[in-house]
Amino acid sequence: MKPTIPQGTRDFGADTVRKRNYIFSTIQAVFELYGFQPLETPAMENLETLMGKYGEEGDKLIFKILNNGLDNEAKAGKIREGFAKITEGKSSKDITERALRYDLTIPFARYVAMNHQQLPMPFKRYQMQPVWRADRPQKGRYREFYQCDADVVGSKSLLNELELVNIYATVFQKLKVDVEIRINNRKVLAALADICGGAEKMIDITIAIDKLDKIGIEKVKEELLGRGLNEAQVQTIESFLNISGSNEEKLQQLKTIFAGNETGLKGIEELMYLIAHSPLTIPYSPLIDLTLARGLNYYTGTIFEVKAKGVQIGSIGGGGRYDDLTGLFGVPNIPGVGISFGVDRIYDVMSELDVFPTEVVSGTKLLFFNLGEAEVAKAMELAQTLRSQGIACEVFHENSKFDKQFKYAEKKSIPFIAVLGSKELEAGVVNLKNLATGTQQQVVFENLVDFNWQ
Amino acid sequence: MKPTIPQGTRDFGADTVRKRNYIFSTIQAVFELYGFQPLETPAMENLETLMGKYGEEGDKLIFKILNNGLDNEAKAGKIREGFAKITEGKSSKDITERALRYDLTIPFARYVAMNHQQLPMPFKRYQMQPVWRADRPQKGRYREFYQCDADVVGSKSLLNELELVNIYATVFQKLKVDVEIRINNRKVLAALADICGGAEKMIDITIAIDKLDKIGIEKVKEELLGRGLNEAQVQTIESFLNISGSNEEKLQQLKTIFAGNETGLKGIEELMYLIAHSPLTIPYSPLIDLTLARGLNYYTGTIFEVKAKGVQIGSIGGGGRYDDLTGLFGVPNIPGVGISFGVDRIYDVMSELDVFPTEVVSGTKLLFFNLGEAEVAKAMELAQTLRSQGIACEVFHENSKFDKQFKYAEKKSIPFIAVLGSKELEAGVVNLKNLATGTQQQVVFENLVDFNWQ
Repeated sequence: MKPTIPQGTRDFGADTVRKRNYIFSTIQAVFELYGFQPLETPAMENLETLMGKYGEEGDKLIFKILNNGLDNEAKAGKIREGFAKITEGKSSKDITERALRYDLTIPFARYVAMNHQQLPMPFKRYQMQPVWRADRPQKGRYREFYQCDADVVGSKSLLNELELVNIYATVFQKLKVDVEIRINNRKVLAALADICGGAEKMIDITIAIDKLDKIGIEKVKEELLGRGLNEAQVQTIESFLNISGSNEEKLQQLKTIFAGNETGLKGIEELMYLIAHSPLTIPYSPLIDLTLARGLNYYTGTIFEVKAKGVQIGSIGGGGRYDDLTGLFGVPNIPGVGISFGVDRIYDVMSELDVFPTEVVSGTKLLFFNLGEAEVAKAMELAQTLRSQGIACEVFHENSKFDKQFKYAEKKSIPFIAVLGSKELEAGVVNLKNLATGTQQQVVFENLVDFNWQ
Repeated sequence: MKPTIPQGTRDFGADTVRKRNYIFSTIQAVFELYGFQPLETPAMENLETLMGKYGEEGDKLIFKILNNGLDNEAKAGKIREGFAKITEGKSSKDITERALRYDLTIPFARYVAMNHQQLPMPFKRYQMQPVWRADRPQKGRYREFYQCDADVVGSKSLLNELELVNIYATVFQKLKVDVEIRINNRKVLAALADICGGAEKMIDITIAIDKLDKIGIEKVKEELLGRGLNEAQVQTIESFLNISGSNEEKLQQLKTIFAGNETGLKGIEELMYLIAHSPLTIPYSPLIDLTLARGLNYYTGTIFEVKAKGVQIGSIGGGGRYDDLTGLFGVPNIPGVGISFGVDRIYDVMSELDVFPTEVVSGTKLLFFNLGEAEVAKAMELAQTLRSQGIACEVFHENSKFDKQFKYAEKKSIPFIAVLGSKELEAGVVNLKNLATGTQQQVVFENLVDFNWQ
């Protein structure tokens, strides 16, 4: 049998894991600097925890787990009768009652609902775990991928938004990815809906605006007309989307449009606060982008999106403020704000920009060639000493031809090899070769640890 | 709705995640020192990759994933007819063709079978990922748990065994867990079967011996008799299990019993090699334990088991040599040897022994109290400076009563708080309080970074 892996999933070899871990650990370190705490939830949730939270389309993409024992009669090699038989008299709950998590937000909400009385409030958590979606696999879209989220819940303070912007800025500076951090406010969009046909148009308007990047203004206008807005309303939306200039100029124009609209003015005030208080020391200040809508309906205040400059790819981060995280689970009045990092895309951007530090992928520093039993005994001893000093090294597993041992070092990109034959053993030295430069030198055993392995 | 999590699964809060990560990163660092490379495989495998690899009992414990789209008619709220309908005309493959991985060995074998031509050989990989089993949950047994494996494949050399013993010793020394590393050899057990009724008794004998710890020698003897061995054979096995003394003494007695038995002598030779070549510098030398059998049938040479001293718990690590990793996937002749760390049990042992370094669970070092807008602006600025120097700090989100802000610091075990009111703002200082000692001091803004935060 020639094995395969499921469509839409990936194996990650050493270099990829190391580069991905570099991204994860960079993000994690910054989360920790801001007082966020780690959380891990199980891969499986009860089906009822997940169902109905992601819209009808989302529900379809949830991977359900077959209840255990069910398939014994229907297992590989047997036919449909077995399965039909076991479903007799059973409700759907007897078939499946667990599912793989679809995102990290609902499991987080479930966790907060279960534990809010013990948690420090505001509760600042980060979570970096895989999620699963039964999407049709295509380039850049996988059925298993990591999400990487930070949320503060139990606080309405805009200080949180400020800190999340700083987190984005700090992470991408550390990763050497030049970005734009765009912000907008759902209250401004709600006000736009107010003056263009009433609050019930809010979802139509945000969904249409959200597509602006992809389909352009003309198609957005068509869509808005199609969704029942009239020409005048569409005109208002177009002039809103055309607002340009600096952050300050945009805010000025907004004040004119939304004069007297309470929600709009509140949104403008929140945007102004973030612009005014973003520390000048951070590398990327937020830019107001009034065309930013974010698809998710639960956002109620600030929304964020991060784009990499100079790389053609969608957003590499996003998030926003929501009023009610846990109401669905019977615990009302827990507002919050969160951001997310798109690790797969960040990986692609960093690969394209070639900004991974070279040391990230380095593994073994030194390979001792295997030249016989007595020599290997000494090599093992030296290797132990080097390892105790934090230098990764290996002893080749068998006394094979030089060529084969060389190839192993090459294939693993090991930068140094040590030849320790009977002559060297007697002299108490190794012949050390730098495979990149080709230079070779004798080093006495005792000096190996202090050699410059960089 | 009051939410719950699936039986047998766990949420891990901040302290637990940090302690677990300390174990993982310690193990990982040692794997890397020995030239092992990381691998990550997807949570899902094709069902046919997994089925038939874990015995009939194992197959039943594999979590199968419902094919997508299947449940639309049978989803929550609807009844069995929906499900029965969709199974009409379908084979079991139409119901489920993917499953959650049950261990890391089969996915590794599948990966090696798919990629062996590109991999450096011997291929040394480590993998630390969760696995899922539909076991009945009970104390210490979960349906989702991490495995943490290192394997070398493509080599028959005993150097690998030596290094794996060193890895065990180094890891547990670093974790401050006192252990016994027990070794045995399946060839010795095969020889025992040879002289007690023939090779076909091998599995009966190892299964019975494997229970010695739990049920005692008398029950083992009963079981052997029940499995068709005669009194004389059981007597031979008992005297084998009674062999005692130092490693050398055990080897001497084995040589007498297995004189002339080729397989037995080969096993003895392998054990001797490991005993003779284990470096004296490693903290825990391997102990020969002839009662060690390990349940898995695919082991063919050295077998390992690690037990914590002074803690009543099963083994915290184990592994062994196998002849053929990938034969099932059409790629023969890839022998290997691997070890595994039982991270959940190691966690329990370290908790009981209280050997987690205190700094492992430390998060935020300093909380700035929130005493008003101007004060907070300064606090945010100072916080940014501290973070840029790697010091984790927070600014409380709102200007609430001291008491509330104190409670937050306490609940998060934040060791220092900084009071920065209007007086302090004017004077350019903060009032810094160490919550553990109660001592308080004024520190000028510029000196905060150089304060001793340990």
